[in-house]
Amino acid sequence: MSAQVPLPGPPRIEVIGVTGIPEVMPGVRLGEVIARASADQGSLLQDGDILVVTQKVVSKSEGRLVSLSDVEPSAFARRLAAESGRDPRLIEVVLRESRSIVRMDPRRGVLITETRHGFVCANAGVDSSNVPGQDVVTLLPEDPDLSARIIREQVRDTSTGRDVAVVISDTFGRAWREGHVNFAIGVAGMEPIKDYRGALDAQGAELTVTRIAVADELAATAELAMGKAIGVPAAIVRGYAYSQADGGYAALLRDRSQDLFR
Amino acid sequence: MSAQVPLPGPPRIEVIGVTGIPEVMPGVRLGEVIARASADQGSLLQDGDILVVTQKVVSKSEGRLVSLSDVEPSAFARRLAAESGRDPRLIEVVLRESRSIVRMDPRRGVLITETRHGFVCANAGVDSSNVPGQDVVTLLPEDPDLSARIIREQVRDTSTGRDVAVVISDTFGRAWREGHVNFAIGVAGMEPIKDYRGALDAQGAELTVTRIAVADELAATAELAMGKAIGVPAAIVRGYAYSQADGGYAALLRDRSQDLFR
Repeated sequence: MSAQVPLPGPPRIEVIGVTGIPEVMPGVRLGEVIARASADQGSLLQDGDILVVTQKVVSKSEGRLVSLSDVEPSAFARRLAAESGRDPRLIEVVLRESRSIVRMDPRRGVLITETRHGFVCANAGVDSSNVPGQDVVTLLPEDPDLSARIIREQVRDTSTGRDVAVVISDTFGRAWREGHVNFAIGVAGMEPIKDYRGALDAQGAELTVTRIAVADELAATAELAMGKAIGVPAAIVRGYAYSQADGGYAALLRDRSQDLFR
Repeated sequence: MSAQVPLPGPPRIEVIGVTGIPEVMPGVRLGEVIARASADQGSLLQDGDILVVTQKVVSKSEGRLVSLSDVEPSAFARRLAAESGRDPRLIEVVLRESRSIVRMDPRRGVLITETRHGFVCANAGVDSSNVPGQDVVTLLPEDPDLSARIIREQVRDTSTGRDVAVVISDTFGRAWREGHVNFAIGVAGMEPIKDYRGALDAQGAELTVTRIAVADELAATAELAMGKAIGVPAAIVRGYAYSQADGGYAALLRDRSQDLFR
């Protein structure tokens, strides 16, 4: 009887929402909190997992909160707000978080800016949903790659000591398409882009589309297990073979000089 | 002893690449082929699965192939091609598949157009990778929603008779960001957008971001299990509770009059 060599199974990826994470307060060690919640629900983190964490809880843990009652709007913010009926203090915070305005439609209150990090999104990522307290908004993390690295190290420092990659996700709109999807705004422990340059397709021809933004695809994947309203601010993606690397969101941002849509 | 009511588990989604699909020839009943390959690898389709299928095999099954040797380029195509060094016959096919040019950079050979369906993407989705034969390119399906509906019905007509949703995916670039990701270009059996309008967040406040393009997130999710070069042209997403509906990609396209980036 010849030995049976098991065939490699089909590619299989699992996405597990992490439940039971209590309201995140500034200063909390988020990586530990998530690792504990994962263990409590029976989904112990494993080496090679990708942990996707929403911007909202990262910003809360880092105290990236602004109370609008402390904000004095500029004349420009007041003018924009008057045209659209939006809160001038919120517009002021958006402008403070922006390094340029990419498009605006004052009448409709649309303000698409480039954040200080280089993300192009509505309202510079300033958000008021899922934030406790009157008139409190969250800002994007100061350095979302650093946020991802810290969460990664906190996970590694827990008793189970697992080596995971971390993606910080946020929900952005897109050009040309309706609806929002989750994008990666911080990456640690993996290559954010999978590069097929030089690779051959199944026919032996060189591939045309050669660079896949897997960190963005992972963020979108995690959203399906998180939803917006169900208190699931993190998800584990298991079984995706990423390339280990330092990470960094910069690789996901098109240089302004190469961008035909700015 | 009181009865133990099992807690609902954490949200859990599975993504399974479908392997063993032979080279797809025009006229093949793709839904049956995929259902059979899924069964052969031990991943029988189940009611409520989402079957994501790449444009490439859908186009092949529908005979949406053009041999460049049959194409006579127009004067405009020849001029564009001369500046960039690209094949004038390929440019001609791209122009034929387009209803407008959104951006072009003739020097770099970049041609971003709106397809006859309304998708904004490079080269109108005309693609030469993973196509057998010299100088043969694929076009997008004529009506990708119809393609999705047909695959859905073919799956339902197999012996197992499962009711799945179907998403046809293609790999597009994005404004502002590097790398490509998979998008939905055809949808059958599910709402492509999940609408949270009127829903409350965990704090009881109304949600700011209210419409999630889940069909695009499903396409991106499936890509992680497919890769570009490994001959996995379909994936099953299991455990995502979509809203049953006819579907249709139109809901994913921003009306030109509302689009600040055209």
